[in-house]
Amino acid sequence: MPTITPKILPATSSATNPPLMIGDLLDAGVRMAGDNPIVYRDQHRHDYRTFRERVHRLAHMLTQQGVSAGDVVAVLDWDSHRYLECFFAIPMIGAVLHTVNIRLAPEQVLYTMNHAEDTFVVVHEDFLPLLEPLAGELPRVRGYVLCQETPKAMDTPLALVGEYESLLSQQPARYDFPTFDENAVATLFYTTGTTGNPKGVFFTHRQLVLHTLGEASAFQAPGFALLSRDKVYMPITPMFHVHAWGVPYTATLLGATQVYPGRYEPEMLVSLLVKEKVDFSHCVPTLLNMIVSAEAVAAGKVDLTGWKVLVGGSALTPSLARRAWALGIDTRSAYGMSETCPLLTATILPRHIEQADIETQLPWRCKAGLPVPLVRLQVVDLEGQPLPEDGESVGEVRVQAPWLTQAYYKEEARSEELWRDGWLHTGDVATLDSRGYLTIRDRIKDVIKTGGEWLSSLELESYISQCPDVAEVAVIGVADDKWGERPAALIVPADLNRPPSNESIAEFLEQFVTQGKLNRWAIPKVIRFVDVIPKTSVGKLDKKRIRSEI
Amino acid sequence: MPTITPKILPATSSATNPPLMIGDLLDAGVRMAGDNPIVYRDQHRHDYRTFRERVHRLAHMLTQQGVSAGDVVAVLDWDSHRYLECFFAIPMIGAVLHTVNIRLAPEQVLYTMNHAEDTFVVVHEDFLPLLEPLAGELPRVRGYVLCQETPKAMDTPLALVGEYESLLSQQPARYDFPTFDENAVATLFYTTGTTGNPKGVFFTHRQLVLHTLGEASAFQAPGFALLSRDKVYMPITPMFHVHAWGVPYTATLLGATQVYPGRYEPEMLVSLLVKEKVDFSHCVPTLLNMIVSAEAVAAGKVDLTGWKVLVGGSALTPSLARRAWALGIDTRSAYGMSETCPLLTATILPRHIEQADIETQLPWRCKAGLPVPLVRLQVVDLEGQPLPEDGESVGEVRVQAPWLTQAYYKEEARSEELWRDGWLHTGDVATLDSRGYLTIRDRIKDVIKTGGEWLSSLELESYISQCPDVAEVAVIGVADDKWGERPAALIVPADLNRPPSNESIAEFLEQFVTQGKLNRWAIPKVIRFVDVIPKTSVGKLDKKRIRSEI
Repeated sequence: MPTITPKILPATSSATNPPLMIGDLLDAGVRMAGDNPIVYRDQHRHDYRTFRERVHRLAHMLTQQGVSAGDVVAVLDWDSHRYLECFFAIPMIGAVLHTVNIRLAPEQVLYTMNHAEDTFVVVHEDFLPLLEPLAGELPRVRGYVLCQETPKAMDTPLALVGEYESLLSQQPARYDFPTFDENAVATLFYTTGTTGNPKGVFFTHRQLVLHTLGEASAFQAPGFALLSRDKVYMPITPMFHVHAWGVPYTATLLGATQVYPGRYEPEMLVSLLVKEKVDFSHCVPTLLNMIVSAEAVAAGKVDLTGWKVLVGGSALTPSLARRAWALGIDTRSAYGMSETCPLLTATILPRHIEQADIETQLPWRCKAGLPVPLVRLQVVDLEGQPLPEDGESVGEVRVQAPWLTQAYYKEEARSEELWRDGWLHTGDVATLDSRGYLTIRDRIKDVIKTGGEWLSSLELESYISQCPDVAEVAVIGVADDKWGERPAALIVPADLNRPPSNESIAEFLEQFVTQGKLNRWAIPKVIRFVDVIPKTSVGKLDKKRIRSEI
Repeated sequence: MPTITPKILPATSSATNPPLMIGDLLDAGVRMAGDNPIVYRDQHRHDYRTFRERVHRLAHMLTQQGVSAGDVVAVLDWDSHRYLECFFAIPMIGAVLHTVNIRLAPEQVLYTMNHAEDTFVVVHEDFLPLLEPLAGELPRVRGYVLCQETPKAMDTPLALVGEYESLLSQQPARYDFPTFDENAVATLFYTTGTTGNPKGVFFTHRQLVLHTLGEASAFQAPGFALLSRDKVYMPITPMFHVHAWGVPYTATLLGATQVYPGRYEPEMLVSLLVKEKVDFSHCVPTLLNMIVSAEAVAAGKVDLTGWKVLVGGSALTPSLARRAWALGIDTRSAYGMSETCPLLTATILPRHIEQADIETQLPWRCKAGLPVPLVRLQVVDLEGQPLPEDGESVGEVRVQAPWLTQAYYKEEARSEELWRDGWLHTGDVATLDSRGYLTIRDRIKDVIKTGGEWLSSLELESYISQCPDVAEVAVIGVADDKWGERPAALIVPADLNRPPSNESIAEFLEQFVTQGKLNRWAIPKVIRFVDVIPKTSVGKLDKKRIRSEI
């Protein structure tokens, strides 16, 4: 390929070729739906025009407190209208929004706040007990703004500058926001790795605007129609986690009514869903499961018909999708990760599947789906060669898109592992079918490499978990001189007093061998029966600790 | 405002922060709707996968013919699947697509092709008579590719390199497209000014991708749902004119079925609308009028119920919208210009209007509407101060957006007039109402500046045209020592043998004075009765020639 010298005329200037700025998303939403409400539990409700005015007041307040472009502002709050305001005001003055993961252990919260170099903090009163013991070790922080549900005097050693609502009310209603380089960092947060310190990922104004436009396009695909001026949106994915999948930005662009639920208490969530007539939410399978199992829902006392839920984080299973469908809930899948802003793919059903019965649809609804516009996605072998799109060839997913974290923040070595050959390596193994639909099979580090073949620990777990004697299972690879690795399982028996035997598990798995789904050598020889399986802070199997227990 | 120094980390590289490339729009469409057809009249039909393959073949063919990055390739064709292929293949190899306005006078076609520095030409056989006399004066052009409806030998002095279909069939089906600077020019074409030479406007890969995403978002707004995998699209705005408003790119992104009608013969258009069950088109009022007046439509022999039409170019009138509505046709407005790629605003109805009866809706459907996402729009007075959004204050529309032509091609003085104070000046005068809806009132050069007030020639024309004795009218300003300017009218009488008098026109206009719509001084004193009013090549009133006739 010869060097490309296309015509570039005239020298690009920011006057005629303006940068992509997050603030433009807000203005579009206010134009589209100035009257639509932003709702916080049953405590607050105001329209989009007030929302924008509050963003301007917040910008004034931050500026008054000495926050300027390039500074990093930490937020510790439940999902709220305040958090949404921080999503806009902080980046719009050129500062960086650090959404602190409030579920991390205190020493990890401390690590991330110092690593991010936070200089100013917005903190909900519920997190004072978390921050107070750390404050002495946060030398850069110059001030704390307190968020309270109802104003009352607080006795705290933190250097409070005031209460959020009260500070906002003292500010002018109009801020003259600057325009600057679209590659300026807008947001920063940390992923919860199972090894080493949390890793910082960051996104620029350009990336968030493009992610929002790409997400808006994907969310309007046939069968979706998830967001618009006439829809009501409520996230059930924390706003500290990948900006709630970026959906608050997309909902704002399109002018949707937005409902923020604070803490994720199942009763409150269900009551908001019903009261606010929520059309669309997104969450991990665990939370969807919690909601469909909530007493009022299970007892048929509330009607969730028409509620659309996009499920991500881990795989939506056909059985959960079926339970939801029986309650009138329409579920689809989306796939992405912290490093990818996050949206990479979403389950848009092929036309012939969309017209089929629900049992035909369910497996399709559980696939990761199609790459959204501007995402380039490949499934490659260990040498980086793209594999056939045959629905069977398993390899690692690697991606390019204009909204991927460009590095781990101040982590050169780890960044080089993430970005190789110009592609971001997701660490997920998957198949692509002939229509381009992605199905995630496993994490690459959980794949068991045995005798030159890849065995999915996830698949093996799914087979073992179908055994009635098994309550929970985790599968890992253990070193083997002959095969490289062999599978081993940690099992919580259904009846702790009557654990099954290795032989009965092997016998149960024979049916999958007969059906051609499993190779006989994949039946684990090493099995430990335990009372509980180690999990990470977000409830995923902690395979690192599991390895140490086998 | 202090200088903004936001955090920019790490140095942006094209590997981790990929440029926006037109080719990604095509890939998204193929993923979404690989089976959907691209249709050309009743002559061609193939699916999106074949469409992409043909784009790859075209890229090979151009490369084989020596076209390389930075070269300018001219296309002279009717609206066709071939033109759509050129929309992608030419920019995707880094070359520039020059969409030649085939309605210009031959000497203007020659001017634009030399000014653009075209080196290669794709030409439909119907335009050989236009090009053959010019070829000797196009020294840069190295070769011509001929498009034929049915292959046959041609006797032409042009340096033909072959026939389009035949050349494509000889090429490999897969081209390895390069990635390059997103600010590279992708398209170039010329506006038909009423004074001086045509002016070149140009758009980059970045701009076209962003325009497409913005248009996709606007076209999914409530009440729109114009384009998706499940919709059928047919343009009735020529592809040489602002890339048919950029909609072929948007339709491709979303995977809509696309129907290209070739020449705009009313019978063919109506027959395609019916046969292909077209859901969405866009056109100027004249063409919509032509279609609703077509014999088969007027006689009720065909059913156009459900056809959605976006009208732009000049104002949609309530009477035309009403006629269309009676036939089941849903019309809205859009506003933009060649310099703006073109989309700036579109008529999304406010919720309370959308729920009202059609007579209440009609005036709203005829407004220019709301700015689409990422467009910043102001209506300003002569000093550049934004005017109140009160629906009454009339001023010039100026805009910023990431998809405006950054200059007139190689025209410094004219570019400085277009871009002033960091805003593109549209030359349109308009009002904004309290909801942010734009209503275009006139062209600024056609506004009559009289006694410190602005009088809209368009409005005065609309009042005069309601007089039963008037067939057609044009109003201009003529110099006046006392008032600066005063209105003057050119009128084609309804009955050429019985022209009305100045007095009877003044008498007719009295009713609008009584209604408070018109000032008495705005009644034109100077009136000329003529047989015909001069028009431009695209059918607009030629006010320059009109001025010379009064």
